[in-house]
Amino acid sequence: MMERVRRVERLVSLTKILIDRPHHLFPYSYFCEKFKIAKSTLSEDMAVIKSSLINEGLGLLETVPGSGGGVCYIPDSMDADDYRFLQKVAKKLSTSDRILPGGLIYMTDVLCDPHIVSRLGEIMMKRMYRLKPDCVMTVETRGIPLALLVARAFNVPLVMARHGSFVTEGSSVSINYVSGSSKTIQTMAMPKRALYAGERVLIVDDLMKGGGTAHGLIKLAEELGAQVVGKAFLIEAIEPEKKIINDYVALLRLYKIDEVNMRIDIRPIREVKP
Amino acid sequence: MMERVRRVERLVSLTKILIDRPHHLFPYSYFCEKFKIAKSTLSEDMAVIKSSLINEGLGLLETVPGSGGGVCYIPDSMDADDYRFLQKVAKKLSTSDRILPGGLIYMTDVLCDPHIVSRLGEIMMKRMYRLKPDCVMTVETRGIPLALLVARAFNVPLVMARHGSFVTEGSSVSINYVSGSSKTIQTMAMPKRALYAGERVLIVDDLMKGGGTAHGLIKLAEELGAQVVGKAFLIEAIEPEKKIINDYVALLRLYKIDEVNMRIDIRPIREVKP
Repeated sequence: MMERVRRVERLVSLTKILIDRPHHLFPYSYFCEKFKIAKSTLSEDMAVIKSSLINEGLGLLETVPGSGGGVCYIPDSMDADDYRFLQKVAKKLSTSDRILPGGLIYMTDVLCDPHIVSRLGEIMMKRMYRLKPDCVMTVETRGIPLALLVARAFNVPLVMARHGSFVTEGSSVSINYVSGSSKTIQTMAMPKRALYAGERVLIVDDLMKGGGTAHGLIKLAEELGAQVVGKAFLIEAIEPEKKIINDYVALLRLYKIDEVNMRIDIRPIREVKP
Repeated sequence: MMERVRRVERLVSLTKILIDRPHHLFPYSYFCEKFKIAKSTLSEDMAVIKSSLINEGLGLLETVPGSGGGVCYIPDSMDADDYRFLQKVAKKLSTSDRILPGGLIYMTDVLCDPHIVSRLGEIMMKRMYRLKPDCVMTVETRGIPLALLVARAFNVPLVMARHGSFVTEGSSVSINYVSGSSKTIQTMAMPKRALYAGERVLIVDDLMKGGGTAHGLIKLAEELGAQVVGKAFLIEAIEPEKKIINDYVALLRLYKIDEVNMRIDIRPIREVKP
């Protein structure tokens, strides 16, 4: 009986430790030493955790065999659950009181809700999983919470570009870009030490209209010798039809902001399996 | 045997769901329906999860009795572990290559590391727990990731002030403030709808020197009728000795940046129990 209690308690602790660091590879020896158990016992525990997470659609455990091996947790909700969640977010973003002058939408509150962006971060990671980025890159300000939680889901660092150069960032590289919708020239900068040559960069932002800002981020990453492997946005607007960038992923699509009838039309995009 | 396997699997799922939303009160009925179990069975499961988390220093389960009751997870690592973690962060921030011209430190990479800020967010929540804030407030840009994860640990929204007013934020209130160290007058603004009257606000920022920025955030919150219940910083600098604000909490203290010998002295602050 004692043994059984100890086992379930260990399973709870193992689950907590694993899911706190998605994509972090924990060596088997780490857990064997921590809980003073044999590797065979740990393997049994992992089998239980694995099947439980899969059955409930809560994620995957990936085991890497060999001496450098171990186990890591990968968030992986069921596609149907994701779609329902995106529907909820789309509905929340479509209330008429969000319409701002100039055909804009107030969405900062949604982008700053930790529970919403945690889940969005996991969904985005899932859809971009095969890209295996080394870091997530965004530009200040509104997209930072989402980008951070995409980075968390991938277990990689976040790097931020800023509008202008700051003394607290050290030597920086800056570029000019044209914001697609407003046609104004803007500047963004990034510390030289933020990216290394050849680093695989995933660009994340909250909203993509013409793609000007994303294009600026790509140029900035390339300026530092990094390689942009993907672009992901929470929302893509269908207007303008012509985008400066291609090959991107978006979770929601903005069809229309009707300022006369005070209606916003945002809908989730179903994942296209390659 | 079948029953036993199902129970351990259920424990894994329960753990995952609970710790994914710290401080969120899940009604018992939610789990009873989800797993098709009696309340007595759920209570036994919760007792196991609770003792496991406490024994391993991974957090607490709080149960609220009654018809509106339920259970929620509260991150609560052991104080000694927190201190060791803060020592590691302090060491990481003290490497000589971080010294920038003008007695500044490059720390954006640490503030954008999802694993580090997740843990810092939980430690900060723990130290400010009794304040029960309704939201966390910060000002762009560098402090946003930390503030978001403090908000996540409290299960409350994040609100952000910005330098200047933005069309995407709707009607805003702005104030001027004096940045303590540079003695320059700056502006920060916040959307009117970001805070409601009487809301309990916890201010979070990465670095506090004279306290000018924090003082500006307090004024801005008060301008919107909210009530600042606490101020928390990752780092407080001992210079200048005179601060504009008082009654704040910091996790690390910056004693000295020695530009001649290229040395930074940052050390963790032990928690003072009231």
